[in-house]
Amino acid sequence: MTTTSQVIQQLLNSWTAQNKLVTAFFDKYEETAYFKEIAPGRNRPIYLLGHLIAVNDGMIPMFGLGERMFPQLEPLFIRTPDRSVEAIPSLSELKANWAKLNETLANYFANKDDAFWLDRHMNVSPEDFQKEPLRNKLNVLISRINHQSFHMGQLILLTV
Amino acid sequence: MTTTSQVIQQLLNSWTAQNKLVTAFFDKYEETAYFKEIAPGRNRPIYLLGHLIAVNDGMIPMFGLGERMFPQLEPLFIRTPDRSVEAIPSLSELKANWAKLNETLANYFANKDDAFWLDRHMNVSPEDFQKEPLRNKLNVLISRINHQSFHMGQLILLTV
Repeated sequence: MTTTSQVIQQLLNSWTAQNKLVTAFFDKYEETAYFKEIAPGRNRPIYLLGHLIAVNDGMIPMFGLGERMFPQLEPLFIRTPDRSVEAIPSLSELKANWAKLNETLANYFANKDDAFWLDRHMNVSPEDFQKEPLRNKLNVLISRINHQSFHMGQLILLTV
Repeated sequence: MTTTSQVIQQLLNSWTAQNKLVTAFFDKYEETAYFKEIAPGRNRPIYLLGHLIAVNDGMIPMFGLGERMFPQLEPLFIRTPDRSVEAIPSLSELKANWAKLNETLANYFANKDDAFWLDRHMNVSPEDFQKEPLRNKLNVLISRINHQSFHMGQLILLTV
């Protein structure tokens, strides 16, 4: 194992640990709790779960691994704020989506070499990547880990 | 530059970017705003600033770089919850501590080679490190980046 592989593995471990924290949070309370706002006028946990799925799902096309698994969640949980859309999927459906997405991403990530992670993601052109070589897939992963921590900090404010 | 150095640099960039977000947040509003709770019964921004300084300051001894710069903040902002202690430092003092700490850490981190980051931190013994080689300084940095994102997610809930 190269030292680069080791560092990438440390980031993947951090990613997996974050996912487990989110899963544990959504397994902790009765269903009704996830429909309460985390703070007055703020997002509900069910919205944040949909948001995390939709954002993380975007890594599949960004990494050139295929199409989004749940494209129907993007308009509901990225392009519109909470409580602006009448019908959103049920909690149990979102929890199943979350589990399936994590399993799929873990399988995708399991066998990738250093070159995969250090290469450009699909939202940056080969020309721009030459100028900005840090715009690689690993940077997207780091940013997604931070994004998940950011929302986890909000989720734990829920008063049940 | 080795690919390992590049990945370490990407993490240091993420760290610096997070620090700037926190700085910008505490430069944004009138002083009184930082004494309001982020949500009913939750921490005040001034407490979270002290907490981030105290936690990040702990990296100096953990990395074998010297003593904490602000040891007096540890009992106030790590070992006790918000509003449990009568007197805490003023906002302007904490903001100055925050800036000074970031500058000091940036200087410490600027010239470190890969081996520094991949070596054990001081809270793990050489024997335990042999068994768990991922308990290195980089892992602490990753965890501190996440910790900062976690609290940044809370800070932005502040209603001014």
